[in-house]
Amino acid sequence: MSKNYGALTERFKKLGHIQHAQTFLSWDQQVMMPSGGNAARSDALAELAGMAHGLLTGPELADWFSGAQTEALTAEEQVSLFEMRRHWQQAACMPVALVRAQSLAASHCEHDWRGHRADNDWKGFLPKLEIVVGLAQEEAVIRKEAGDGRFEMPYDAMLDLYSTGDTSALIGSVFSKLKEALPPLLQEIQAQQPDLTGIPGPFAIADQEQLSRSLMTVLGFDFGSGRLDVSAHPFSTGGLGDQRITTRYRTTEFAEALLATAHETGHASYEAGLPRAWSGLPVGEARSMSIHESQSLLFEKQVFLAKPFVQHFTPQVHQHLPATQGVSAEQLWAHYTHVAPGLIRVEADEVTYPLHVILRHEIESALMNGDIKTADIPELWDNGMMHYLGIDTRGNYKDGCMQDVHWAGGAFGYFPSYTLGALNAAQQFSQIKLASPDWESRLAVGDVGFIRAWLSKHIWSKASLLSTPELMTQATGKTTDPQYFLDHVQARYLRGAY
Amino acid sequence: MSKNYGALTERFKKLGHIQHAQTFLSWDQQVMMPSGGNAARSDALAELAGMAHGLLTGPELADWFSGAQTEALTAEEQVSLFEMRRHWQQAACMPVALVRAQSLAASHCEHDWRGHRADNDWKGFLPKLEIVVGLAQEEAVIRKEAGDGRFEMPYDAMLDLYSTGDTSALIGSVFSKLKEALPPLLQEIQAQQPDLTGIPGPFAIADQEQLSRSLMTVLGFDFGSGRLDVSAHPFSTGGLGDQRITTRYRTTEFAEALLATAHETGHASYEAGLPRAWSGLPVGEARSMSIHESQSLLFEKQVFLAKPFVQHFTPQVHQHLPATQGVSAEQLWAHYTHVAPGLIRVEADEVTYPLHVILRHEIESALMNGDIKTADIPELWDNGMMHYLGIDTRGNYKDGCMQDVHWAGGAFGYFPSYTLGALNAAQQFSQIKLASPDWESRLAVGDVGFIRAWLSKHIWSKASLLSTPELMTQATGKTTDPQYFLDHVQARYLRGAY
Repeated sequence: MSKNYGALTERFKKLGHIQHAQTFLSWDQQVMMPSGGNAARSDALAELAGMAHGLLTGPELADWFSGAQTEALTAEEQVSLFEMRRHWQQAACMPVALVRAQSLAASHCEHDWRGHRADNDWKGFLPKLEIVVGLAQEEAVIRKEAGDGRFEMPYDAMLDLYSTGDTSALIGSVFSKLKEALPPLLQEIQAQQPDLTGIPGPFAIADQEQLSRSLMTVLGFDFGSGRLDVSAHPFSTGGLGDQRITTRYRTTEFAEALLATAHETGHASYEAGLPRAWSGLPVGEARSMSIHESQSLLFEKQVFLAKPFVQHFTPQVHQHLPATQGVSAEQLWAHYTHVAPGLIRVEADEVTYPLHVILRHEIESALMNGDIKTADIPELWDNGMMHYLGIDTRGNYKDGCMQDVHWAGGAFGYFPSYTLGALNAAQQFSQIKLASPDWESRLAVGDVGFIRAWLSKHIWSKASLLSTPELMTQATGKTTDPQYFLDHVQARYLRGAY
Repeated sequence: MSKNYGALTERFKKLGHIQHAQTFLSWDQQVMMPSGGNAARSDALAELAGMAHGLLTGPELADWFSGAQTEALTAEEQVSLFEMRRHWQQAACMPVALVRAQSLAASHCEHDWRGHRADNDWKGFLPKLEIVVGLAQEEAVIRKEAGDGRFEMPYDAMLDLYSTGDTSALIGSVFSKLKEALPPLLQEIQAQQPDLTGIPGPFAIADQEQLSRSLMTVLGFDFGSGRLDVSAHPFSTGGLGDQRITTRYRTTEFAEALLATAHETGHASYEAGLPRAWSGLPVGEARSMSIHESQSLLFEKQVFLAKPFVQHFTPQVHQHLPATQGVSAEQLWAHYTHVAPGLIRVEADEVTYPLHVILRHEIESALMNGDIKTADIPELWDNGMMHYLGIDTRGNYKDGCMQDVHWAGGAFGYFPSYTLGALNAAQQFSQIKLASPDWESRLAVGDVGFIRAWLSKHIWSKASLLSTPELMTQATGKTTDPQYFLDHVQARYLRGAY
């Protein structure tokens, strides 16, 4: 008999239904809703959040969790119980007053950030950010204490919200290798790389949309179970049988939207591939942001940017975007893979991107662990950007330490997942290459079925049944190891191998 | 102190937030969702419905209602309390077992109806419809008993779900005048009406969409607080600050979509004009379907079809639909207003439409009051169609008594609101004409502001603060009176006055 486990399962499925409502109402808010609807939508979402929080933190749950410990459960049910408990702890450990204070501080700070950033006004921004950082430090300490001893440092407890299973220790060792290897590699790549020649547009938005749909079809997206739309920032969301991705188009440049489409198709494919048997329960969800980002980056960087795939897909680019017809596949590949250090993270190529993340990780982990003050950020930023990327950011707060919204919104611990995802993608793809030595000739004919099959077997179908390190180890033989990514960068950017 | 009234208000606002979620998730289901999402969406909607039902029927509500009776409330709060009580009664009076049996029977019967209708198979359909009718009769009796003596007959209790405030007695007297006056009027109109000449297309869908948007703009629709989309059947939904209407286009005919757009713009204008002060509470909702339909029909039939408006709008039709450029405003008006008895209600013109409704009303009221059997429907149908419209439907169940989904889905009492709406629209518009004797010259320049202002003052801003008869009386001096509609039909169709 597993009465308590059954009660918990029923409760979390109910929460899953509310989450479904939240997911699609938020999608609508970002993609479809006219501005006039925002007040009522915000009220309704707040109501649903309150109801979900109440259902997740009711006093009966502590009894159910304690009762379930002695029930006869299968190994998978044990994991399901653990994941339900983790979600419950994350919600129940937070004092309501702190949650409310954070919500207020974050929404003020995010709002003011836009103005201060536009004015390059660090001094005006600092006192507001200090409040958000102070509350997040409180949060980190509370979460660490509630973590059943799973967290070494306060920052680890924040990481657990996003990159579940990736610890400060692992990230520290992985990032230290990267920050040693990448800067010299970057210099070498730049030295031998030809100059970038632009591809003049314009590129009509309707044409780009058709091209994006073609790409999604080649990559295996099922339009009977999903949609492509437009939003201010590309994102991917949805639920069982209904994956929704967005992109955005500019008429002067087409590659960014196309790569974003490949990226979001990766996220959507992961979600679509989660096992139906565990649907609606925490254990049935995607493992973590560092695995989620590995799926999007695998589709974007490993598959779409692979030379044979670019060769296969170029005729479709030519067909949909007549302005590109004089540009060869080789030239398009050079265009897509051009490397150049820059100020802005979201515009960075795959070689320089990790250095942007490492800098942010160093700062945010020190902030959460109480080792630095918020006021120290600009100096650390300037030193880091010069050291890692050779870029002078002194006095340029706007395109420096004020460029991202994450910290203003109270999100500390999210940044590492971008780079862990890139490393995990390279590591998984190295296994796919070993398993399918003819991978290049397959990509050259637009066949990605073998890639989807491998991912489905080793990543998608596992949902949250394994921890991140276990998942990577079962799939690739090792926990996250930066060497695969460094090998990939050398092969693609120094030897032009693929 | 009004502690109980306050508790009720808070509860109904909470219900309003859940309703917001249900509304927009249903819109998404009909307009945006890929088919793969239906199972999860249905689960989530069922969860929300269950939660809403629980919140509406909790045992605490009876105490609150009884406590609120003795609290000091303003006159408007008294009405608000009455409307909350009405909603509560409607939900709480129904035994859960009956609701479940109805839901099952209706979803089976609706599903099977599609096949049986396609096969013209009344015999196969009858046993399934008998179950639905039997359960609806049970429902009607229960609702009548729970109605605090407000209902004379079981059918009145069913009417109250849709055409709140319109009784069997009122409908009976109104419809008896109509069914006497309309058939001879119809013969007279047909005798003097020129033959209809078709307008050959094709009409590109993108062009029609632009035309619909132009029409909505002229009619005062605010695209900052609403959207126009496409769905299988045109409908209007939404909430505060976010009205969503849909239409559907055919490339061979454009008038139907255009009139549907005008119609749904009327529904949306009503919703958008409801008073913010009562937003989220039953008293702040639209009064009833017979008033709602009056707003859609006022925009469609009284405004859009008025000759001066057609003259104003024809250049836009010419501009967006080049295939119409040889057709004059006068010819377009004749096209839009052609009268012809036909088999199908949803394709009927405004002169014959009421006769379709009267026939359905006679049958469904007799069914609910237990005066006839389900098996009697075809004979009553054939006789009625011959008598009212001179059309032989014997043996043609498909385009006869099986053409509508309403009864299969368990909706008895809805049909009258279509025609009550048409009558109310003519009656309200007669007041608008009196108040603005220059109405024709205003419509001739596309000015509908005076119409919107009158409706806002007399209908929209009143929400559910008045009963339907009170609302019509305060606005027009009388409860629903068919003479205004008959005058309108004679003026437009016999004298070609507007």
